[in-house]
Amino acid sequence: MSFPEHGSQVAGIYQALGLSQPLEATIIDMSVNLNPMGPPPWLQEVVQLEWSHLLQYPEQHGESLLAKLAAVESIDPTMVLLGNGGAELIYLVARLFTDGDVGILRPTFSEYEQALVGVNARIHPLLLHEENGWCWDQNEVFQQLQALDGIFLCNPNNPTGVAYPQEDLCALVEAAAQRGILLIVDEAFYDFQDVPFSLVPWITQYPNLIVLRSFTKMYHVPGLRLGALFANPSIITRLRRWTPPWNVNHLALFLGKQLLEEQEYVLQTQQYVQGERRRIFAGLEKLGFNHSPSVVHYYLLSLREKEDLTPLLKHLALHGIVARHTYNFPPLQGRYLRLAIKGRKENDRLLQVLEEWSR
Amino acid sequence: MSFPEHGSQVAGIYQALGLSQPLEATIIDMSVNLNPMGPPPWLQEVVQLEWSHLLQYPEQHGESLLAKLAAVESIDPTMVLLGNGGAELIYLVARLFTDGDVGILRPTFSEYEQALVGVNARIHPLLLHEENGWCWDQNEVFQQLQALDGIFLCNPNNPTGVAYPQEDLCALVEAAAQRGILLIVDEAFYDFQDVPFSLVPWITQYPNLIVLRSFTKMYHVPGLRLGALFANPSIITRLRRWTPPWNVNHLALFLGKQLLEEQEYVLQTQQYVQGERRRIFAGLEKLGFNHSPSVVHYYLLSLREKEDLTPLLKHLALHGIVARHTYNFPPLQGRYLRLAIKGRKENDRLLQVLEEWSR
Repeated sequence: MSFPEHGSQVAGIYQALGLSQPLEATIIDMSVNLNPMGPPPWLQEVVQLEWSHLLQYPEQHGESLLAKLAAVESIDPTMVLLGNGGAELIYLVARLFTDGDVGILRPTFSEYEQALVGVNARIHPLLLHEENGWCWDQNEVFQQLQALDGIFLCNPNNPTGVAYPQEDLCALVEAAAQRGILLIVDEAFYDFQDVPFSLVPWITQYPNLIVLRSFTKMYHVPGLRLGALFANPSIITRLRRWTPPWNVNHLALFLGKQLLEEQEYVLQTQQYVQGERRRIFAGLEKLGFNHSPSVVHYYLLSLREKEDLTPLLKHLALHGIVARHTYNFPPLQGRYLRLAIKGRKENDRLLQVLEEWSR
Repeated sequence: MSFPEHGSQVAGIYQALGLSQPLEATIIDMSVNLNPMGPPPWLQEVVQLEWSHLLQYPEQHGESLLAKLAAVESIDPTMVLLGNGGAELIYLVARLFTDGDVGILRPTFSEYEQALVGVNARIHPLLLHEENGWCWDQNEVFQQLQALDGIFLCNPNNPTGVAYPQEDLCALVEAAAQRGILLIVDEAFYDFQDVPFSLVPWITQYPNLIVLRSFTKMYHVPGLRLGALFANPSIITRLRRWTPPWNVNHLALFLGKQLLEEQEYVLQTQQYVQGERRRIFAGLEKLGFNHSPSVVHYYLLSLREKEDLTPLLKHLALHGIVARHTYNFPPLQGRYLRLAIKGRKENDRLLQVLEEWSR
């Protein structure tokens, strides 16, 4: 008999006892120690239609969503871990590098470094070069490999929007594998590319590869908190020991499964982004602005002279447009702004406000 | 100028720039790189009334709820940390004991041990004694203090429902403080007591005390994921370095603030629980069952002879009542069942099914 680890696992109890389960409605679950009066009555009004997901414990490791995600990616469920947003998974992976040495391909998302500093890892900046299309120099990076336990990169990268050449990625994974270095690839934006390219299928071949994904960006649900990690089963097992039970809330699990059905929606997004990006880039070039060669729905804006863009940030803000500063994207230091592609009207407004500034 | 650490922090940008913020509706937020098409259209239907909380990033550390909770508890906000459920906070606290020695007052919630095993802590079981009302023996525990870096206990305890005498708690905190031992007190059920007693006010006096709380139990929202930790600011600072941003989802933050207003609801719950507990305990005693001297809404059931209760667990299950087994509550080993107090009708049904079993 293998009993479930916690209360409120009705099916597990019947299973462990070798009994067939009675009708759901006839069951009184006395295995769970929640308020016998239920929730305050206004809660139902607040989260109307699907509120009842808040009244049940989520699956301990989000098993049903995990299985569905594995099927979508054609990999084994033992190679997937769900997270309370991508951020939880970044902090989880960072623990693999306690007191270690980690390279970060910069400029990039600041939370890799935040998480690594928390575990006393030494950060080794690996530079991306604008003149190289915001990609890395192979020789430069390979020379530093010897000192590293791991490397973090984001593909397509944040804040540049650049997707790295597949041959560069392949060479890096291979070189890292030979030296026993873990390579963490954050694919939070991979599905915004015109032709999405992912390293998830490489995991079966490379046990040193960890891929992160997020539901936040594509499905516009940052308040929901849902992310996923793909890696070799031995890494998953190690990370799971540090993962609290019920780390993904019930609404996220419920919605996540439905969001995975949205292939058509993803395609429409990709097409829209591609069209608007071309239109905006043409407008920017006409106005004399530089932009990163982004393949997604955000990009870096700069001036030829690469001066500090605080005045432009201010100008935009004054006209009601909020850009992302780059002060915590070293080494950008405010000489760039990150801008997102929005609706057509909003994009037009941006070009108009930038034109006013150029004059 | 102090810029926000991430995009989508409109107010922070205006503040950092020293500008007054235009009307919300006139702002185009291009600092956040989310899908420009918004979420799939069916999402609105699914989480109808308050669905828009899923479309925004939650505050990075739940600042507004944190401030409100601190005010309710009359302590400084620097002494509070919010968690993605109590479970995240248990796993977070466990990291303070990496490779260390930790005592656990048993039987108790299994996740303390799970979390500690994950950080290679050595577990020292400290026994609670049924003949002592499921409390600890002071001499026995004090003798073991020398070997420990920390102690976990749950008050009122899960699964016994017993609240420890205040003088025992006071003596233990004091003794732990003298030896530099951290004391972690999980108060997930404290507000179900007739007269709630909490150690949170002691934190200002004892820098070695960490108190955990949960919204899950009282407000019946296990799917929401919301917990809180109270401790000395130096401990909070240490733990925050390991806490991912946005670890509490937006719906939990929103609802959490409203749940804190529910004093009347909590009072009604306490009264109901007290009345039903008395009625059930009288019924159990009449039937010849033993029960733990619980002060909350669940209790341990056993027989005088303390035999394995799998047959009773099975009998209950056959009659549609699911009890909590105690196989992973060492040292209970299945010789007890944990039962929750439910509605009057369900409680009557329990007594009826137990009577049938007694015959």
